[in-house]
Amino acid sequence: MSKQPSSSRFRIRIVFADNHMIGPGKMELLERIARTGSIAAAGREMRMSYKRAWQIVEALNATFKEPLVLTTRGGAQHGGTTLTESGEAVLRQYRMIEAEAESACKDNLRHLEALLKDVPESR
Amino acid sequence: MSKQPSSSRFRIRIVFADNHMIGPGKMELLERIARTGSIAAAGREMRMSYKRAWQIVEALNATFKEPLVLTTRGGAQHGGTTLTESGEAVLRQYRMIEAEAESACKDNLRHLEALLKDVPESR
Repeated sequence: MSKQPSSSRFRIRIVFADNHMIGPGKMELLERIARTGSIAAAGREMRMSYKRAWQIVEALNATFKEPLVLTTRGGAQHGGTTLTESGEAVLRQYRMIEAEAESACKDNLRHLEALLKDVPESR
Repeated sequence: MSKQPSSSRFRIRIVFADNHMIGPGKMELLERIARTGSIAAAGREMRMSYKRAWQIVEALNATFKEPLVLTTRGGAQHGGTTLTESGEAVLRQYRMIEAEAESACKDNLRHLEALLKDVPESR
């Protein structure tokens, strides 16, 4: 979240051989589920309908061997929702891939940035 | 286009500091413009309206110092459309970034793939 004003960043979508994919939106949802303990709350933070957030979670759970998100029906009001070990691992690998890609491509990215229109410093 | 059936691939969107971005769709459009010599034809190949294709080209041209796509009004029927040197350079850098990112992230990608549900070989 804290970036130098002059830095570019990558948004990486990984398309698996079976055409399932994961990307920044799904990973952000996982992170927010881990923090809030709730699919509804995580979706709301991203201005996503409850239905949409659930669909994403279901799709993710269907893509991987183990479910990434686990909802336990707890008390009367609401169950607890957490990331499984597999969910934590997917998120961690994805963040590592992002960081690794940006670091590996630093030089080419500078070349690309050199072609950009200069933007006034004082915006 | 020729991929091993078991390989994952990246779709990378590069978000520049000023929030302009380039990604696989825009780069594909540039490639098709270079090949067909026509924004309309390139857009059509991607099932994109003429207007949309033009908007993308205009946005790209506004993002970089030099325009990436040059349309010269030639004969009566149609002008010729080509990528400029800058257009070729942006496309080349983007493809290099893609390749470099995939190669740098190979190990982490394998770890991620190991978490995927096994899919039947015979699809």
